[in-house]
Amino acid sequence: MRVFDLPVEDLRRLAESVRAETAPESAADVFARMTWTVLVEPGDQVAGQLLGSIGPRRSLELLIAQDPSPAIDVWLAEGVDPRRAERIVTDAFGRWRPRLAVRPVVRAIEQAAGLGITVVQPGDEGWPAGFAALGPAEPIALWLRGGRSALEALTRAIAIVGARASTGYGEYVATELAGGLAERGVAVVSGGAYGIDAAAHRATLAAEGVTVAFLAGGLDRYYPAGNSDLLARVARTGLVIAEVPPGVPPTKFRFLGRNRLLAAASAATVVVEAGIRSGSLNTAHHALAIGRPVGAVPGPVTSPASAGCHRLLREENAVCITSADDAIELAGGDRHDEVAGYEPADPAVVRVLDALGVRRGRAVDDVARSSGMAVGEVLGILTLLEVADVVRRVDSGWVRVPGSRAPGRDPHSGERRR
Amino acid sequence: MRVFDLPVEDLRRLAESVRAETAPESAADVFARMTWTVLVEPGDQVAGQLLGSIGPRRSLELLIAQDPSPAIDVWLAEGVDPRRAERIVTDAFGRWRPRLAVRPVVRAIEQAAGLGITVVQPGDEGWPAGFAALGPAEPIALWLRGGRSALEALTRAIAIVGARASTGYGEYVATELAGGLAERGVAVVSGGAYGIDAAAHRATLAAEGVTVAFLAGGLDRYYPAGNSDLLARVARTGLVIAEVPPGVPPTKFRFLGRNRLLAAASAATVVVEAGIRSGSLNTAHHALAIGRPVGAVPGPVTSPASAGCHRLLREENAVCITSADDAIELAGGDRHDEVAGYEPADPAVVRVLDALGVRRGRAVDDVARSSGMAVGEVLGILTLLEVADVVRRVDSGWVRVPGSRAPGRDPHSGERRR
Repeated sequence: MRVFDLPVEDLRRLAESVRAETAPESAADVFARMTWTVLVEPGDQVAGQLLGSIGPRRSLELLIAQDPSPAIDVWLAEGVDPRRAERIVTDAFGRWRPRLAVRPVVRAIEQAAGLGITVVQPGDEGWPAGFAALGPAEPIALWLRGGRSALEALTRAIAIVGARASTGYGEYVATELAGGLAERGVAVVSGGAYGIDAAAHRATLAAEGVTVAFLAGGLDRYYPAGNSDLLARVARTGLVIAEVPPGVPPTKFRFLGRNRLLAAASAATVVVEAGIRSGSLNTAHHALAIGRPVGAVPGPVTSPASAGCHRLLREENAVCITSADDAIELAGGDRHDEVAGYEPADPAVVRVLDALGVRRGRAVDDVARSSGMAVGEVLGILTLLEVADVVRRVDSGWVRVPGSRAPGRDPHSGERRR
Repeated sequence: MRVFDLPVEDLRRLAESVRAETAPESAADVFARMTWTVLVEPGDQVAGQLLGSIGPRRSLELLIAQDPSPAIDVWLAEGVDPRRAERIVTDAFGRWRPRLAVRPVVRAIEQAAGLGITVVQPGDEGWPAGFAALGPAEPIALWLRGGRSALEALTRAIAIVGARASTGYGEYVATELAGGLAERGVAVVSGGAYGIDAAAHRATLAAEGVTVAFLAGGLDRYYPAGNSDLLARVARTGLVIAEVPPGVPPTKFRFLGRNRLLAAASAATVVVEAGIRSGSLNTAHHALAIGRPVGAVPGPVTSPASAGCHRLLREENAVCITSADDAIELAGGDRHDEVAGYEPADPAVVRVLDALGVRRGRAVDDVARSSGMAVGEVLGILTLLEVADVVRRVDSGWVRVPGSRAPGRDPHSGERRR
């Protein structure tokens, strides 16, 4: 059993060095998956489809042997017409072959081993269940820095993402949200960038929660460099994850691909601040595309840093998020407390109380005339309100009890009553 | 023809004094309507139903004669069961009778005439068509201060409402919205209160637009007193309107009733700032109840003055409003300009551009390997981009043209590009 003419012992040694499955019969498969992460760009659905159908090793053997026919059969079996099937596979082989070489793969694995980077693949314990929603765009394998046990936290995670060019307001809200989620045992997923992402990671760490950063480039270098210390701290208790191998630089395309991982690893995605062209909107669109709820934190309409959030609220049916409780509800969880709401009081009661003063007593028929109600009804309500200590009888009629809590409220007031 | 034993000449004189319809056969009807605005509280649906079925004068005659049977027949004809029909009318007569007297009606009309207040009733030219949505809660008549011709503006009006306890931010946004609507020929409807309402009226006047204030109390006194000068200015070019006659003080109940007029007179309602218990939410609920669109302006989630707006966005499907254009679109109009949006570029183009620098040229097969694409595809894209002046050939291969506008964008940036 050989891949790239490497003996299986070498494959096992390489797999073991990144703590991947090492049973003799699977070592070649693991090695093939790691190879595929070198060959393809993130989200290559043709690769995903091929590996899912005939396995990573067989797929790799076909590519090495330049034998597309069995691969074409995969699409024919799906009912794709023969010319299109051939085209799909020929194109794919054409884009994968330029990178086909054993050296870069071995180098990536050795570099990973040197840095304590490990590999996890679909089917392994802890493989994020949420990735299944990506279908053939599911990552082929993940490279991790940090404790693999933190993968478990992704069963209950929310992504908090946003602009690098954040404002103090946005960072404050990201901090509050992430801290609140951490306190409730929810993992915070983000992209490790400056601004909102960094605030979310930092607040989760401060609250001793689990936070997971998905990066666009290989984990040999933390990007951006200014967040190196933060990402090293993230890896200490949580995880830093990439689907590309060590040595691969982050590119625009890889950022876009990485965004789908943020969305798919999380039960919900919350955008805290985003300019009108922010990449966070791309993450939100990935979440919407796989049916995950998306929330957006509003901000001043005068702030360009919130314009993308407002756009999500206006045009994409994003849910307005103002607190960690809102975010948990967005993800389908129970709110911890309920905000008291506007609830109109009984109109008849409002009318009777409108007619009463706190000093001078007023006769029932006077109250009836003033409130436009029947005498009997007024008397009935006054009797009920008397029991509730809201009104009382005086010599000259009825008065409101000063300081009593009326079962209505100022109907045109902007003040919040606590 | 007499009402309250007043000869028809008196009725005509009184009607004429408030510039209401004065044809001999209608003078008694007009007088009866004005009487009904004295007898009932805002939104009395039983009165609305009765007047709509048998007319204001006949309804009044039955009340004076204490003859409920013909009134009960109105509900029987609607299929209401006899006991309930009797109960509805008996209750209504019970609440209307305490106020039944000719003197207060004549006094209200004379007071109106003295202040230049006029009356408009359903069917009159300029009667706001939007009120029809209120059904039996449609106002029986309106008392106006200002030029009746301004009623015409209500055919194209948007309500801007909000907290009295507004912030500088809220007042700024209300000013921008109202000014923007005025410039586009849209009338601004509001409630004449401190805070957001005042800012909306003031900005409309400053932009020489038409603004209409609906008050909860009679127009003999402007409420709140601190806005007297502002409301007097509103009446000079626009209108101040109440459904209750002069001399009637504003009460909580009348504020709630007034709110339905704000909603019904406007094609859409926008809440700018509102605490969690603000009366503006009541106005928004009235709008939703009659199927009118509701918008809410977001603000910082840290601001209690925006909490009611965020609640509308979260729980009532209100539309997020950030500009006058948004408000016009909310009301079903055309936007004047379109905000440029996030639109992902062709992924293959992004991948090719990712692989190029602006200085050192790169060979096509090198670009192919680096971007994970086939050589042929890379060459095709480079050729297209060369035509668009985004890339060019150099000795050593291909480079990006510095400063060229790439058909992608920074995928994780919060900055707004203008």
